Amino acid sequence: MSQNKNRIAVKSELKFIKSLKLKKNRVKENMFIVEGLKNVLELLNSDFKVLEVYSTDEYTHYFKKISYKVISPAQLTQISTLSNNQSCLALARCKDLSSYEDSLDHWTIVLDGISDPGNLGTIIRALDWFGFNYVICSNSCADFYNPKAISASMGSFARINAFYMDIVPFLKTFEGDIYGLDLEGQPLDKFKNANRAAFVLGSESHGISDAIKVLLKDNLTIKKYGQAESLNVAMATNILLYHLRSF
Amino acid sequence: MSQNKNRIAVKSELKFIKSLKLKKNRVKENMFIVEGLKNVLELLNSDFKVLEVYSTDEYTHYFKKISYKVISPAQLTQISTLSNNQSCLALARCKDLSSYEDSLDHWTIVLDGISDPGNLGTIIRALDWFGFNYVICSNSCADFYNPKAISASMGSFARINAFYMDIVPFLKTFEGDIYGLDLEGQPLDKFKNANRAAFVLGSESHGISDAIKVLLKDNLTIKKYGQAESLNVAMATNILLYHLRSF
Repeated sequence: MSQNKNRIAVKSELKFIKSLKLKKNRVKENMFIVEGLKNVLELLNSDFKVLEVYSTDEYTHYFKKISYKVISPAQLTQISTLSNNQSCLALARCKDLSSYEDSLDHWTIVLDGISDPGNLGTIIRALDWFGFNYVICSNSCADFYNPKAISASMGSFARINAFYMDIVPFLKTFEGDIYGLDLEGQPLDKFKNANRAAFVLGSESHGISDAIKVLLKDNLTIKKYGQAESLNVAMATNILLYHLRSF
Repeated sequence: MSQNKNRIAVKSELKFIKSLKLKKNRVKENMFIVEGLKNVLELLNSDFKVLEVYSTDEYTHYFKKISYKVISPAQLTQISTLSNNQSCLALARCKDLSSYEDSLDHWTIVLDGISDPGNLGTIIRALDWFGFNYVICSNSCADFYNPKAISASMGSFARINAFYMDIVPFLKTFEGDIYGLDLEGQPLDKFKNANRAAFVLGSESHGISDAIKVLLKDNLTIKKYGQAESLNVAMATNILLYHLRSF
């Protein structure tokens, strides 16, 4: 008989899972949720500690080798932050995001107040595509464990480490050049630099903070040819990462 | 006395506006909605015919020179597709999206089944940033007038023309080289071509259709250095446009 026989999600669990949409509850419980098949499978394949998997009947064959609980599609919709999640959801233990030790990566991406969790997740996905290992986030950035960030990362949350800190002292002691990506500056497509460097991306509404601006060696810009007022910060980061990999 | 005195949104109008979330109603009425201050201001600055502007009290000073109706924040939330729209919404007349005549643009971006309206809007924004004038969409693409596409374009919907058509005959008679952007192919960062060309982006889930694949001169790829399974199609398009502008 299967180990999963009769393991069914109960009402109090659903309420608990819903409570984890809020950061204060994620911090208190040290848990986060992962939604949708792709993200849950990546979670199972990572070094995160998985606490529980909830699957609808239709998807349980993906979880034959592990313990899971059955959930109805209606219950899943009720607790999901995604409008179209018909498959599964998992509960996992948060990792400590403050334990950064200099990894001596050649290029370091620093996010200064990226407040939209969707943008954060999209940046995490791009970092993973372009072979980066980690990202430095100011404490004013969206939470790495926000369900929208986790979802938008399309599984890349399982491979990219995000470290949260006060980025001013980090950059003050950074051993390498520091550049900002901004609406004005040296054209990115002409930029080449073999030195170790950090690249700062500023917030969606305010750009790079003044306390950081004074630390920059130079500003780089993605040259505008048309009339759009700005590029989305996740788009800009993608282009930066592509450029850094192309020389 | 202001021409806007006593012009207040009534219940039947709100119901009508809500109905325009559905494509069939937009097609029937030949109208679409534009949400949020940035997008509404861009609309007013465009050649779209504006039928009505609904503004909350706090934002009416943006609309002093035009006719508008006052709407309460609660009513606006009720009819908005955006969760955080506190400002305004406008109703506008759709333009015909099938009247493409070859504009002889040097590069033509062709979308083959981009079904997510957020991705479509983000691509429209990027086209505007990089100075493109139009985009060719397969009939299977998300609707240009979908509120999520309009919102994600951040005003660029007002400047970029999207033409919907059967893209197979379009590409068969296209006078120039045709490339696809795919997970495998010639590295994009080495690609240079001075000829007139079309670039096809495939759908989020199925990639480029088989009927199109046989028309391609070559596939281009954004080289992967890490482990993410894919790049979001809007990200990939951004990188393609950046690259096309950098040589």
